[in-house]
Amino acid sequence: MKLLRVNMSQLQARWEPVPSSYEQLGGRALIAKMLLDEIPPACDALGPHNKLIFTPGLLGGAGVTTAGRLSVGSKSPLTGGIKETNAGGTAGDTLGKLGIKAIVVEEQVKQGAFYLLHITGDSAELLPADDLRGLGTYATSDRLQERLGADCTVISIGQAGEFLMLGAGICTTGERDQRSNHAARGGLGAVMGNKGLKAIVIDKPVGKTIPFADAELFRKTARAYAQQMINDPKLGTQGSQHLYGTASIVAAVNEMGSLPTRNFSSGNFQQSTELRGEHLRELILTREGKIGTRCMPGCVIACRNQCVDDTGMPIVGTMQFETIALVGSNLEIGNLDDVARLNYMCNDFGLDTIETGAALGIACEAGLVRFGNTEDILSLLSQVGEGTVLGRVIGNGAVVAGRVLGIRRVPAVLGQAMPGYDPRSLKGNGVTYATSPQGADHTAGNAFGARKEVNPLGITGQKELSLKLQIIAAMLDSTGLCLFARPPVIADPQLMVDMLNGIYGWGWTKDDLNRFNRDVLRNELEFNRRAGITPADYRIPEYMREEPLAPHNTVFDVPDSELDTVFETL
Amino acid sequence: MKLLRVNMSQLQARWEPVPSSYEQLGGRALIAKMLLDEIPPACDALGPHNKLIFTPGLLGGAGVTTAGRLSVGSKSPLTGGIKETNAGGTAGDTLGKLGIKAIVVEEQVKQGAFYLLHITGDSAELLPADDLRGLGTYATSDRLQERLGADCTVISIGQAGEFLMLGAGICTTGERDQRSNHAARGGLGAVMGNKGLKAIVIDKPVGKTIPFADAELFRKTARAYAQQMINDPKLGTQGSQHLYGTASIVAAVNEMGSLPTRNFSSGNFQQSTELRGEHLRELILTREGKIGTRCMPGCVIACRNQCVDDTGMPIVGTMQFETIALVGSNLEIGNLDDVARLNYMCNDFGLDTIETGAALGIACEAGLVRFGNTEDILSLLSQVGEGTVLGRVIGNGAVVAGRVLGIRRVPAVLGQAMPGYDPRSLKGNGVTYATSPQGADHTAGNAFGARKEVNPLGITGQKELSLKLQIIAAMLDSTGLCLFARPPVIADPQLMVDMLNGIYGWGWTKDDLNRFNRDVLRNELEFNRRAGITPADYRIPEYMREEPLAPHNTVFDVPDSELDTVFETL
Repeated sequence: MKLLRVNMSQLQARWEPVPSSYEQLGGRALIAKMLLDEIPPACDALGPHNKLIFTPGLLGGAGVTTAGRLSVGSKSPLTGGIKETNAGGTAGDTLGKLGIKAIVVEEQVKQGAFYLLHITGDSAELLPADDLRGLGTYATSDRLQERLGADCTVISIGQAGEFLMLGAGICTTGERDQRSNHAARGGLGAVMGNKGLKAIVIDKPVGKTIPFADAELFRKTARAYAQQMINDPKLGTQGSQHLYGTASIVAAVNEMGSLPTRNFSSGNFQQSTELRGEHLRELILTREGKIGTRCMPGCVIACRNQCVDDTGMPIVGTMQFETIALVGSNLEIGNLDDVARLNYMCNDFGLDTIETGAALGIACEAGLVRFGNTEDILSLLSQVGEGTVLGRVIGNGAVVAGRVLGIRRVPAVLGQAMPGYDPRSLKGNGVTYATSPQGADHTAGNAFGARKEVNPLGITGQKELSLKLQIIAAMLDSTGLCLFARPPVIADPQLMVDMLNGIYGWGWTKDDLNRFNRDVLRNELEFNRRAGITPADYRIPEYMREEPLAPHNTVFDVPDSELDTVFETL
Repeated sequence: MKLLRVNMSQLQARWEPVPSSYEQLGGRALIAKMLLDEIPPACDALGPHNKLIFTPGLLGGAGVTTAGRLSVGSKSPLTGGIKETNAGGTAGDTLGKLGIKAIVVEEQVKQGAFYLLHITGDSAELLPADDLRGLGTYATSDRLQERLGADCTVISIGQAGEFLMLGAGICTTGERDQRSNHAARGGLGAVMGNKGLKAIVIDKPVGKTIPFADAELFRKTARAYAQQMINDPKLGTQGSQHLYGTASIVAAVNEMGSLPTRNFSSGNFQQSTELRGEHLRELILTREGKIGTRCMPGCVIACRNQCVDDTGMPIVGTMQFETIALVGSNLEIGNLDDVARLNYMCNDFGLDTIETGAALGIACEAGLVRFGNTEDILSLLSQVGEGTVLGRVIGNGAVVAGRVLGIRRVPAVLGQAMPGYDPRSLKGNGVTYATSPQGADHTAGNAFGARKEVNPLGITGQKELSLKLQIIAAMLDSTGLCLFARPPVIADPQLMVDMLNGIYGWGWTKDDLNRFNRDVLRNELEFNRRAGITPADYRIPEYMREEPLAPHNTVFDVPDSELDTVFETL
């Protein structure tokens, strides 16, 4: 395998062998180690010393189902700490097949220019891309696929990343028609913009396969793994994920009183039935849109959808739970078509829908626009793409919007907006938000799935649950697995060990895997510590400890002493 | 002596005896101890748990010359750490005479209302003040003095504080015509606004004097102290401070290449001769304005001026060096009349001219307005008072402006904008900015005066110099002395010891005074540590370590290892 180092100040891309210390790492694990080894933790995240890393998980390219996620990592300009954010699409699989352990983007271009990195097999070159300046991610992807091949992978930023906005994510294409996958969180689109990189295009590798140390072991295990998913009643073709996508949980989250509503002032949204996954499915099927498509080649869950408008025109694929919560209920928008329009615009500008939904909620609370008024909210959001001052305020996310607009109720931890679970009624997620080196991030350890084992309104067991989930998340994010694909490897970690040994021949045991997972968190926590982040910086916002949340009228009351000891047994 | 506790949620003001732990404290020392004892360091600075403290120094009310400053303290919403900011005017002397050790404002009003605290002798009451909403500090002071007496002291916020802007300071009146003194730094005007307190009015105490433990010792020492100042060639009536005010150093700072110019991109301003104190004096005297007036009763230095326009109408009093640097040279404005107009508007809105000048510099760099174009810059600044979104961006200071406008060159430390000395060519001030618990603040330890002893471009000796100056500043800010009044007490600390013993009879030695001074810094550093602030948070911005500053082409290169050990011998 090899690394691709891209120096944006010298405009050079060069291959190098993978240093031995990085050999047994991939995805989030590689990002954690690389940032710790290679960048000064206190550096300016939007300066030349930060690096932007694109890396598949350890399973990338091997053809394991649901394991082709692309991890993007950097010091986050939003949180000031380490950030790994991942997305589906074809990039993870493609990089794996090409034997590219990581693309590491370093330094920054001279003021104002934009470039394109084009990777074809063993060649990589930087090309001027000023013609793409100001384009959204849809137009960027389309134009580059027209120019360089319909089946190439395009990773790009929209206007938000060009404008260095902290709500900017990175978009990556998938199989035909699956244009929009987003490594959305932590403002890494701004890092890409700051480096002067508008897009990366990777030609589809033809006839490339990765070498296997023990092909038989790998094939056997990967097949067993896929079969277990197909057999899982929740994940198979009759499972709720496949039928309704991630939106399948809207009703349950609303019922538990945790659905962000009206800038996190209630956990219950009256119009939530309109937003449910069941309704989404019905709407899409009636209009001959698509349900059960895939974000990654070969995924057996296929939870993706293609939303279409009432004329059958595709609007956005895929509409997800977090988006429905943050730009739907959180803005008191109870109409999926409206959510789809906001979703499309965020995708096109290259904005994180979570961060942006939270910022828009604050704008509503400040009275700039009214909750529930889609047209006005759309018009406000459109300013992000224009780069007006108000657009820049929204595009910079919840904390900046709260600061500028004088709003104290900002649902964020470590500078990053909370996803679609209010921590006052799903306290396990509160513990994750308040301890994860990634800031408020459900993918770092989501307690929703364990709501029947650990009372989401209680304190007991949350700390232990969060740690367990955070360790699992570290494994998933480092191997390229989707969160939904976790049940088989949780039930039997030997599956993961055997797949890795089958590919790499490392002779790992379950203990090795356990150490690997924990090292991810240890390295991330150490990076953040060196960056000057302390427990006080991770706290749940004060108002959420004091302002009870309807309908359960609970506050977030897990004591700091519990939070401060989550990683004691790491 | 007594404390006045003002609860803004219950709308009650009550007197209480001074707890013994606060007895030997005043000004900045009292603020440090009180914040450490009474508020949770990680609390939301714009939430109910923060407190806002008004306190005279230990010499306040005793009639010592140049010792009547009012300290205002709080957790700063701008820096996230402890903040003490002080101002001249009559408040310090008045509170001292009334035997009021401190006014402690707690909790916050129900949404939106504004109140006025009126203190007359032993009575204190909160009165509705919604009629003052939206008024600038000039109109607020005028209206309250019309209503309650021309000789009462008015402490107030302008629109910036009402809007909770992080650049908001607190204004306090002085003797007749000396309306505008500003405890400007750290965004404490926003804390006052957040509490719902528009103003404090203190009636002039009649016939009140403080009791003296040893009146003879006090009188003798205070007289000797005053005489030493009068005899000091720099401070007496032929001294540069009296003749030219703080603007007397414009030429010297420009000459040493440290005068912020064009958003801190040069240390040398071509038109600086137009901004010199000598020119200011000439301009004012030609127009029959005033030179050599006082900000505090009885001050023998009298460095204040009253700027008038070309018709003789008073514009602003007093125009100071930091304002000239930040809204003058930093914006490439080389005309004192233009600076005066910007100064007036900042004063009226209740904005820190340093923070606002830095934010405006960033707006210029972002291309919103042109450097040097006073009319456009004034028009932009006027939006702060209107509370437009752009006005809020500017009013929230340099870091927010840089973030929103996508500008990396933000001259700030710990969230607070730098005053008028670029740390690349006055490295001692860089050390102070990068270590003081107060963030970038020249009054915390200004190395300018020592430029002939320690080479401002070198590294050697800066660390020791900064610590020495920071300890002295802690003493000045805790006793109510003006920075300019320090030479006699530095030359002979026994003067300070004897004045304090004369008033209080504590029997202090110089060692006690030394411990007292150091305790201020120790308490502040401990508060910040508990608030989650680490050495990484105090760093000089990365670009100032890499981008050489004309004309010396030096960068800030004092190693972190030096910065991290400044307080080793504290």
